[in-house]
Amino acid sequence: MNHAYEELKPYLERVLAFQTAKILFEWDNETLAPKEAERNTTRVVGILSGEYFSVITDERVKELVRRCEEERDSLTQVERAVVRELKEEMERLERVPKEEYREFAELTARSTGIWARAKKENDFDSFAPVLKKIVEYTKKFASYRAKEGQRLYDVMLYDYEKGFDVETLDRFFGVLKEQLVPFLKKLTDSGKTIDNGFLTGDYREEDQEAVGRFFAEYVGFDFDRGVMAVSAHPFTTNLHNKDVRITTSYNDHVDDSLFSVIHESGHAIYELGIPDELTQTLVGQGTSMGMHESQSRFFENIIGRNENFWVPVYEKLQERFPKQLGSVTMEQFVRGINKVEPSLIRTQADELTYSLHVLIRYEIEKMLIEEDLDVEKLPDIWADKYEEYLGVRPKQVSEGVLQDIHWSQGSFGYFPSYALGSAFGAQLYHYMKGQMDFEGLLRRGDLGPIREFLREHIHRYGKLKTSRQILKDVTGEDFNPQYYVDYLTEKYGKLYGVERD
Amino acid sequence: MNHAYEELKPYLERVLAFQTAKILFEWDNETLAPKEAERNTTRVVGILSGEYFSVITDERVKELVRRCEEERDSLTQVERAVVRELKEEMERLERVPKEEYREFAELTARSTGIWARAKKENDFDSFAPVLKKIVEYTKKFASYRAKEGQRLYDVMLYDYEKGFDVETLDRFFGVLKEQLVPFLKKLTDSGKTIDNGFLTGDYREEDQEAVGRFFAEYVGFDFDRGVMAVSAHPFTTNLHNKDVRITTSYNDHVDDSLFSVIHESGHAIYELGIPDELTQTLVGQGTSMGMHESQSRFFENIIGRNENFWVPVYEKLQERFPKQLGSVTMEQFVRGINKVEPSLIRTQADELTYSLHVLIRYEIEKMLIEEDLDVEKLPDIWADKYEEYLGVRPKQVSEGVLQDIHWSQGSFGYFPSYALGSAFGAQLYHYMKGQMDFEGLLRRGDLGPIREFLREHIHRYGKLKTSRQILKDVTGEDFNPQYYVDYLTEKYGKLYGVERD
Repeated sequence: MNHAYEELKPYLERVLAFQTAKILFEWDNETLAPKEAERNTTRVVGILSGEYFSVITDERVKELVRRCEEERDSLTQVERAVVRELKEEMERLERVPKEEYREFAELTARSTGIWARAKKENDFDSFAPVLKKIVEYTKKFASYRAKEGQRLYDVMLYDYEKGFDVETLDRFFGVLKEQLVPFLKKLTDSGKTIDNGFLTGDYREEDQEAVGRFFAEYVGFDFDRGVMAVSAHPFTTNLHNKDVRITTSYNDHVDDSLFSVIHESGHAIYELGIPDELTQTLVGQGTSMGMHESQSRFFENIIGRNENFWVPVYEKLQERFPKQLGSVTMEQFVRGINKVEPSLIRTQADELTYSLHVLIRYEIEKMLIEEDLDVEKLPDIWADKYEEYLGVRPKQVSEGVLQDIHWSQGSFGYFPSYALGSAFGAQLYHYMKGQMDFEGLLRRGDLGPIREFLREHIHRYGKLKTSRQILKDVTGEDFNPQYYVDYLTEKYGKLYGVERD
Repeated sequence: MNHAYEELKPYLERVLAFQTAKILFEWDNETLAPKEAERNTTRVVGILSGEYFSVITDERVKELVRRCEEERDSLTQVERAVVRELKEEMERLERVPKEEYREFAELTARSTGIWARAKKENDFDSFAPVLKKIVEYTKKFASYRAKEGQRLYDVMLYDYEKGFDVETLDRFFGVLKEQLVPFLKKLTDSGKTIDNGFLTGDYREEDQEAVGRFFAEYVGFDFDRGVMAVSAHPFTTNLHNKDVRITTSYNDHVDDSLFSVIHESGHAIYELGIPDELTQTLVGQGTSMGMHESQSRFFENIIGRNENFWVPVYEKLQERFPKQLGSVTMEQFVRGINKVEPSLIRTQADELTYSLHVLIRYEIEKMLIEEDLDVEKLPDIWADKYEEYLGVRPKQVSEGVLQDIHWSQGSFGYFPSYALGSAFGAQLYHYMKGQMDFEGLLRRGDLGPIREFLREHIHRYGKLKTSRQILKDVTGEDFNPQYYVDYLTEKYGKLYGVERD
């Protein structure tokens, strides 16, 4: 037992309590809270954030962290990881002068509203000056935290994906650009199309909800330890490993809610797999944005859009929607949910084109952060890249550079994780197929062993390992984006009858 | 501006934030949280409670409260009330030795479970020893807080109903016993019965919910500042005056959910009527249990079970339930929802017999706290009193002394407020009828002026006035229980064709 760590515990408990309370307020705000509650409730959340800040930056906490680091050998593995996370959070909060942090918080409190209005009114000019300021602050803050010679964009990436830097990402996105862009062109040039009209129609919300609950449970979401609700945009959150919550939303495209539920269930299964020993500590969550997205997209795409997945359950879906799907064969359905269609909106992209949307954002973020790109030029650069990589060109900024909320919140370095996650998933899939009869398990409706593999090798570590370390330990190989490209080109080559060059 | 009060503000903000967070967790736990979440979440709430305790009993806070009291003249009315509430809470938390408080918290954490099991298994003996301990602790804690010569039960009453003591309550319950008990006997002896069988049946939950939402809004609940959900037992809670939440539950008695929604709406309208200036302060809630119950029962009974209330809306109810109510006239319906039937369970009691259930609990609590009644004797005393006052005798403890949760939580002195609330309401009703065309407003479906009167004279003061002061200021008269007895005997005398002696 280390005395400094023992003394740190009550501080860690308070950090945990303030964090969990904030998460519950956030959940409540997105799913239930009445319209007019916001202002008063924001005040409460602000006070809780202040308390969180005060505990983490307490002089006594700093002293205890220092002592824990000196006495590192007497700490357990978990304790060491907790101290590391605490120290990193402390530095994130402290390196930035309080006054500038406040200014930035005020700016981003306004900026999402300005962005939303600009998007609605299709008016980039009203957002540009705000975005310019946000970029400036973000760069300044990164510069406060940068180690000697560290690139600013690498500082930002660290917050979402430890172990990855511009160099690695350049290689990753380079592979996508070199191989997927021409493959997509070939596929679209082939002129082959898939019918998925039956996915749109009069799908009653109650039925969609019942189907969502069935599939959430089918893939492994545990309703004794979880909740499913409705919000404007689907998300997953968790209070701890016995309370993990997903949301969805309903419209007349049945596949939207269906696959968003399976996607969020993937996120949730990660958090439900955190062991009791780690939950309610600073290392008791998924290790990174990318690894989280790897799990959600693994369930959504590699499992959920796999023909074998539907063998034991497609009839159930037909029974619920006899009018809409009664005469659609399983083969037609599976082709429909895998239809490739280059489009302008990332969140509606199919599995194949998705990462090219991310590629574009990555290239532009690098230009903004590392090359001082003039914000005014964004709409044109955006449109050019869409035309080049996806073959479609936005006519309006609302369906172009203004479509995502992230930059208005100051989140730079976040986008790459979306694509990384897909690539992690493909690498895991390749390895798992060598370890188990993956396709057979899906066909038999026996997802347990797949989930158990992920829990055993990924979930149970929480933040004890980085995503990159996990990949190495599981697959015996460093991150390798080629698996991702191979997975996509094989699957979609077969589906569309085109071959890779 | 008072300097001590200014310095107190950040502490008050933290008290507010911890309190609000705890309320949200409580709400979430009762309405949504998954089954297995409890243990981990309890840990978080425990830490927040600890923080709340720490702030309120902080030495610096004590010093500032002392200074504020010295400099009382430079404080505004609201500030003075806030300091008073803070000091009272401080004393509540501090007078009890920390160790004993912890023991008691542990005891009551177990005792509600033991009570629930005992009730389920109809086994008083397994609960008796725990109850005995709870009574002992409660008396000891009251003795720590009692002023020179103050009765222990008066200390307990103070927490729920400032301004009321045993002497006043003896007079109040004396009037009920003297006048209502013989009136009820006469009524039941008359042999007249009312048919309300149509209130039970196949009432679909979705329809009940739609009806509930309609009536909540009709009586004045504001869904832009409120939420309605489902829980095991109906309750109202509020985060602040822009976020007030009610719950209900559904079964095959349509009047259960209907009147619980109107009842909780009454509570909610009180909290929605708290002005911005008071909300999110220690005086920004309803002033007492009794005054709260006066509002909820005012809406439920004086308004909701009034024939005139149904004139503009009964057809709407029939339209929603044509099969069940299509051939039931409004007169039959109104008689049905006012049926008197002496019964064993308080929460299912009709308007007339309700306060006699409370009378029994009041008499027994006094015996337990002031006369050292042996806990073992409770079942018989309970049964005897039910037989004497209500003419019904429980055959089992589960429908007798074990029916309510309150004592297992250590809540003594709470029950009287249920009856006081009804009596406050009747006194207000008597006065209001002299000020406005109350019945005409109901008939015209114009509840605004009634609600506005309550807001203007009661709600807007929050905790700035006691319930007794409010009654005096509004009606020009001290609390007078005769209005309550007159209201009941007149209404039910007419309905059943019996006269008071």
